[in-house]
Amino acid sequence: MKIAIAGSGALGSGFGAMLYRQGYDVTLIDGWEPQTTAVKKDGLHIDINGEQHHLNIPMYQDTEIPQDAQFDVVFLFTKAMQLQDMLGHIKHHIHENTIMVCTMNGLKHERYIANVVDEARIVRGVTTWTAGLESPGQTHLMGSGPVEIGALVPEGQANVDTVYELLEKADLKPLKSDNLQQSIWKKICVNGTANALCTILECRLSNLNESEYARKLVYKLTNEIVQVATIDGVHLNADEVYHYLIDLNDKVGPHFPSMYQDLINNNRLTEIDYINGAVAKLGLEHDILAPVNQFVANMIHAKEEQRQAQ
Amino acid sequence: MKIAIAGSGALGSGFGAMLYRQGYDVTLIDGWEPQTTAVKKDGLHIDINGEQHHLNIPMYQDTEIPQDAQFDVVFLFTKAMQLQDMLGHIKHHIHENTIMVCTMNGLKHERYIANVVDEARIVRGVTTWTAGLESPGQTHLMGSGPVEIGALVPEGQANVDTVYELLEKADLKPLKSDNLQQSIWKKICVNGTANALCTILECRLSNLNESEYARKLVYKLTNEIVQVATIDGVHLNADEVYHYLIDLNDKVGPHFPSMYQDLINNNRLTEIDYINGAVAKLGLEHDILAPVNQFVANMIHAKEEQRQAQ
Repeated sequence: MKIAIAGSGALGSGFGAMLYRQGYDVTLIDGWEPQTTAVKKDGLHIDINGEQHHLNIPMYQDTEIPQDAQFDVVFLFTKAMQLQDMLGHIKHHIHENTIMVCTMNGLKHERYIANVVDEARIVRGVTTWTAGLESPGQTHLMGSGPVEIGALVPEGQANVDTVYELLEKADLKPLKSDNLQQSIWKKICVNGTANALCTILECRLSNLNESEYARKLVYKLTNEIVQVATIDGVHLNADEVYHYLIDLNDKVGPHFPSMYQDLINNNRLTEIDYINGAVAKLGLEHDILAPVNQFVANMIHAKEEQRQAQ
Repeated sequence: MKIAIAGSGALGSGFGAMLYRQGYDVTLIDGWEPQTTAVKKDGLHIDINGEQHHLNIPMYQDTEIPQDAQFDVVFLFTKAMQLQDMLGHIKHHIHENTIMVCTMNGLKHERYIANVVDEARIVRGVTTWTAGLESPGQTHLMGSGPVEIGALVPEGQANVDTVYELLEKADLKPLKSDNLQQSIWKKICVNGTANALCTILECRLSNLNESEYARKLVYKLTNEIVQVATIDGVHLNADEVYHYLIDLNDKVGPHFPSMYQDLINNNRLTEIDYINGAVAKLGLEHDILAPVNQFVANMIHAKEEQRQAQ
């Protein structure tokens, strides 16, 4: 079974490394030239929960995948705004049974993936594994999972089983979701509050909990997100989600969320359009307004422009 | 005629100095001990549009106004959140004809002032004079006005005339407003966009114009404010106001608004509850929602807590 990691930054490299170490035939693919050059030259250096590994996993620039390469399973791990580009490259290297796995943060990635494979071949999910990239070719993977996965349509269940087996063997702690859409929306609540607010206020997750007013910001955003989620048949209790988020911020207190790392540490564009921006846009399509989520998305974009993020 | 400047920080000192230089009997009053101590000891050092002045104007701490002091005209120039305290002190030093002049930023200060004098004795207004405080006893006044003033009720017109004459003699460029409420709300649009956004994004006024997304933030806040303004019978065109604001940000480009100076430079609490917070609160009283203004008010408060502003 040939596995591609389409998007081998921090989290992609982590999943690739875990699968490769179990003997799977893994190919890393990425669009960021410094990363592909470093891994091609000297392999991947990865710290997995404190343990150092040096793995010579094959790596290709996304524009230079060998013409005859064909993959049976593709894990999509790009930044949200690079997904369409990556799908454009990878679609030439799949066959009629290739499974596409997407556990990326954000809403409605399946709309783009469904342009390339039918819905039954999309395995969608969310994960709490976290990762970081120290420098090109140097990454780390942290946590204990899980990776929650599910099918978009009933006919996709066999593919979920296949991916489950892969992830289980690689010790990536899979979990079959009994309510995939709910899990996706709950993750949107996490990212749509902590990521955006820590990036605007330039603070750690625990700092949000320390301020009565920051907690009000979390609550307001959550409330809007929960209302928009009903469009997908997901009915969350805003107060329950709010308390879950506050507990979570406590647990991972000193951590800076990924959006903060992208924009504040590295001056990179954020995924805000696929989180708060997507909530507002989806809401608008169905007459459920989420003005504060739209405002937050625009605020992050203003900050990107201010910092000339790329 | 005895004039009190109740709140003699930057702008209050400026107005006090302009009146004092015309020979008016002016008394400065303030609640901030370093300021009163400095002025009592060594007079007020003030730069008025680039010209240095050293004026020995009488100054009292707000808690130590001589028992027999009585004022005919009181100019209120506190920070909004200190207004009630100041009124508590000054109410013992007014008589049945004392005029209270309030050209402070923010909404509905007259609700508090009307606890002390009847509405006909309140002269309300807005001003574009700007001022700053370099250190206790050292301030500057900049600009060319105007001070737009008006009556809250028709019976107040004679008091407006009195104040107009004072301001005119002192070269403070008064203007009788032909639509006082509209002027107040237009100023709320200025402060409710530029002050809040420059403080959250930590940028200059011109930077707001440079970002397409920051302009969207200005537009959204303006839109909500214009809707709430209808409660006061004020009907502004949001697009016209928006373009006025963008032009204004261009003109005063390199300037940091007062809220930025308060919170970012000096770690002081802001007047946000009297601007965006007041818009949201007033809207709520009349079922006109302004969720983004409320969110921005909470965001500024979160930032105050984060910085332990005082």
